[in-house]
Amino acid sequence: MVDNKEIIIYDSTLRDGAQAGGISYTLEDKLKIVDRLDKFGVKFIEAGNPGSNVKDQEFFARVKKMKLKNAKLIAFGSTRRVGISVKDDPNIQSLIAADTEAVAIFGKSWDFHVKEVLKTTEDENLQMIYDTIKYLKSLGKYVVFDAEHFFDGYKNNKKYALETLKVANEAGADSLDLCDTNGGTFPMDIYNITKEVVEMFPGTLIGIHCHNDTGMAVANSIMAVLAGARQVQGTINGYGERCGNADLITLIPNLQLKLGFKCVPDENIKHLTSLSRYVAEIANMIPNERAPYVGAYAFTHKAGMHIDAVKKNPASFEHIDPEIVGNTRRIVLSEVAGRSTVLDKIREIDPTVTKDSPITKEIIDELKRLENEGYQFESAEASFEMLIRKKLGLYQPFFTLKEFKVLINEPAVEYSSSAIVKIAVDGVTAITAAEGDGPVHALDSALRKALEKFYPELKEVHLVDYKVRVLNAETATAAKVRVLIESTDGKDTWTTVGVSTDIVNASWIALVDSLEYKLCKEKVGK
Amino acid sequence: MVDNKEIIIYDSTLRDGAQAGGISYTLEDKLKIVDRLDKFGVKFIEAGNPGSNVKDQEFFARVKKMKLKNAKLIAFGSTRRVGISVKDDPNIQSLIAADTEAVAIFGKSWDFHVKEVLKTTEDENLQMIYDTIKYLKSLGKYVVFDAEHFFDGYKNNKKYALETLKVANEAGADSLDLCDTNGGTFPMDIYNITKEVVEMFPGTLIGIHCHNDTGMAVANSIMAVLAGARQVQGTINGYGERCGNADLITLIPNLQLKLGFKCVPDENIKHLTSLSRYVAEIANMIPNERAPYVGAYAFTHKAGMHIDAVKKNPASFEHIDPEIVGNTRRIVLSEVAGRSTVLDKIREIDPTVTKDSPITKEIIDELKRLENEGYQFESAEASFEMLIRKKLGLYQPFFTLKEFKVLINEPAVEYSSSAIVKIAVDGVTAITAAEGDGPVHALDSALRKALEKFYPELKEVHLVDYKVRVLNAETATAAKVRVLIESTDGKDTWTTVGVSTDIVNASWIALVDSLEYKLCKEKVGK
Repeated sequence: MVDNKEIIIYDSTLRDGAQAGGISYTLEDKLKIVDRLDKFGVKFIEAGNPGSNVKDQEFFARVKKMKLKNAKLIAFGSTRRVGISVKDDPNIQSLIAADTEAVAIFGKSWDFHVKEVLKTTEDENLQMIYDTIKYLKSLGKYVVFDAEHFFDGYKNNKKYALETLKVANEAGADSLDLCDTNGGTFPMDIYNITKEVVEMFPGTLIGIHCHNDTGMAVANSIMAVLAGARQVQGTINGYGERCGNADLITLIPNLQLKLGFKCVPDENIKHLTSLSRYVAEIANMIPNERAPYVGAYAFTHKAGMHIDAVKKNPASFEHIDPEIVGNTRRIVLSEVAGRSTVLDKIREIDPTVTKDSPITKEIIDELKRLENEGYQFESAEASFEMLIRKKLGLYQPFFTLKEFKVLINEPAVEYSSSAIVKIAVDGVTAITAAEGDGPVHALDSALRKALEKFYPELKEVHLVDYKVRVLNAETATAAKVRVLIESTDGKDTWTTVGVSTDIVNASWIALVDSLEYKLCKEKVGK
Repeated sequence: MVDNKEIIIYDSTLRDGAQAGGISYTLEDKLKIVDRLDKFGVKFIEAGNPGSNVKDQEFFARVKKMKLKNAKLIAFGSTRRVGISVKDDPNIQSLIAADTEAVAIFGKSWDFHVKEVLKTTEDENLQMIYDTIKYLKSLGKYVVFDAEHFFDGYKNNKKYALETLKVANEAGADSLDLCDTNGGTFPMDIYNITKEVVEMFPGTLIGIHCHNDTGMAVANSIMAVLAGARQVQGTINGYGERCGNADLITLIPNLQLKLGFKCVPDENIKHLTSLSRYVAEIANMIPNERAPYVGAYAFTHKAGMHIDAVKKNPASFEHIDPEIVGNTRRIVLSEVAGRSTVLDKIREIDPTVTKDSPITKEIIDELKRLENEGYQFESAEASFEMLIRKKLGLYQPFFTLKEFKVLINEPAVEYSSSAIVKIAVDGVTAITAAEGDGPVHALDSALRKALEKFYPELKEVHLVDYKVRVLNAETATAAKVRVLIESTDGKDTWTTVGVSTDIVNASWIALVDSLEYKLCKEKVGK
């Protein structure tokens, strides 16, 4: 078993991951995630706890109709309750009603929990584990045994913790999964304890389930694999109760690209970044920009000397080629990026500019001034390009704003907001009005209505993302806000930025930059 | 040395941390952080790279005037350039001009970098290391040698990597700090290689500096300490180039609370949470809610059975007492939290309600409906309390909104926005107007102006935080937004929430909840 390099990836994004603070999936969300996980190639999808959650019961009814290619679904539940028979336990019955080929049963391995939480005897707990697994095996289920708090249990009462595994094994469990439920165990201990268990149950599949309360979940999972565990539980982006679970998005490339194990088909590793962002989007969590492998900053170089070295040879400051995991290299614009990065951007527009041209210093100074005001061009390269064009005299205003007014009314009749925009193009004035859900929506609609008369190509442009960041929140409703707008014309995608104490004004700045960028691209060429 | 349990904490928040994407410190920011780090008890504060950054030169001039209690400041720079003498190297001269007692010098330990980036010979690189350290020692400096890419170098050309350390040691370096610059090394390798170095240089202080590109920075730092390293480099919240550095906020309690090492005075461990949030605030980064020890969710329990167990005994699902690190336990409201948590909240207001009262189900259903709409009560308990009061019939409206209008004008004269609010209190109508920076500010001012006539106690209420989250960004400017408002009356602090497709309306909902919560507290009592 231990010579085998195949790792069974056991995903719990939809169960332990759904217990994360701030996360709440709809039934449709869960079905979408199941589909993506299956395509990615995980072997087990632990998708809910039908005993504790009505929504999960509906989910299992719906998910049955999906045809999965790679994964088996797992319904999750606890051992039978104290003092009743398995058949009379409503949670066990909902587990069976979920009608999955495989189930996971968690049982207590820490004597402290048996006493303090279950309030029963050590023997009854062993019997609960045995009865539950034996019963589910008699129904033909594939049974995973989650030894809850196994490592804490081992440290407190080694004999009893191991006894719970033995009982589960005798009852016919298909794997014994060791859980560091409170996340307080360290790598060397995980290694030594897992090794002892692997040696104690030759031929039995041993799994690992780590929590991140001390920041060790991924490292601990790796140590368990090195000690012989061959099933790894975790979640996409590490979501989960408290500080979360082992992050499969870090763990899978670590095991597969670095340590020679096989977790998912090789050709799927390039989907890691999109999988991570897809789940973050559905979970409505802000993606971690600094996440290993997949974060927006994971292959982003900011310090001047790093940038210079990466230009000479990317391996100098990159542990892998970002394309392997579907990510991209980025060189950011900022005061520590150094002159040469800014110069490269300028020369993309005007190749005659050199580092000693006065305009180079002028642009760098303007960049610094705007960064001090709260602008960030790291993710708003279209706005930065417009700034350079303006400084180089390569910008012609496509329109002039005369004025806009937005009126918000409560109670609302149909839409809460209406906007009037007055612009001029080549001396011709246009005044338009539009309604919208909120002031920014109304203003966006009115501006487009006005401009599309003159520039029909703007009809292709759609906004795909709109982000608001409050900058100095301590002044509350008068705080500065930064708005980022991502736009597309179906071919390209670009991001623009606006900063103001007024969210409508900040949105306006970013909106105008976006539309002018598109017009520049069309009229002037790039 | 290795028997010694004292760890020297070497903070690089203001140097490597400032190279993080999205972070840009002002000079004042840096001075504030130096003060906090010094009070917290770190031994070294690597605060800038005066050779590459003019702002850092000003910073060192200013910071000299501060009286530090615990920490020594470090100016950071590279070995002399290829082919020139140390005295002629402008970077080395700026390093000296920084006038710190201690300096850190990074030099290349990976032959690949010597060839590909420096484009020089292996011998010249050794000479550069030697000359630079020797010169700085001759000026009486305390010199840290950062062996850049040491682990990659060791794996590629062990003999040469070790040679760079020997040369630095011979030149008089006070410590040899092994850097996993690309963050691609795994715990067992870190342990074995560090151990070899520790044994090779008995009596010399060995340091470790890890990057997080494979999620291993904290685990790797711990393994290095177990192997005998006694100086640990890292940053607050793990900020740094790409995926960041070893996170001192996780590493310090791991070493000090769990593994018996001594990093900072014991009495300062309770400031970990506030230190983490303080630096996040200054860096203007969203705090990681799932951060070990200090995250808002680190001791937050959501699943029903976890909540029940924690009520019986907190140790059941908590690896430490949250108060030790200055954090707090939270039980959240959500569909998986189970009836008993919601019931506890209801019974705080009306102790006669039981789990079988029809009102309990009604409130849970309403909670679920609102969560589906995008509300989140996890961090908005005041709004949840208002919801319960309304359902229980214990709510009397303190005022009735007749209408509000907000007008936004561009170009603005003084303020961009003005608002008119018309309300009624006990049949008396009041109509007020106010201006503001943006629509929400204007509306907030007008509403308060109207209400303070009737309820002077509202003068005590101030907003302390205002957060905007775009919920379904794919519909861009017509997306739903969730607004969280944190308010205080000087004694208590409470958070309210509003959701709408219109940011002004969402803000209005949260604002009204906040003011009514205050009035409830005063009039009805709690």
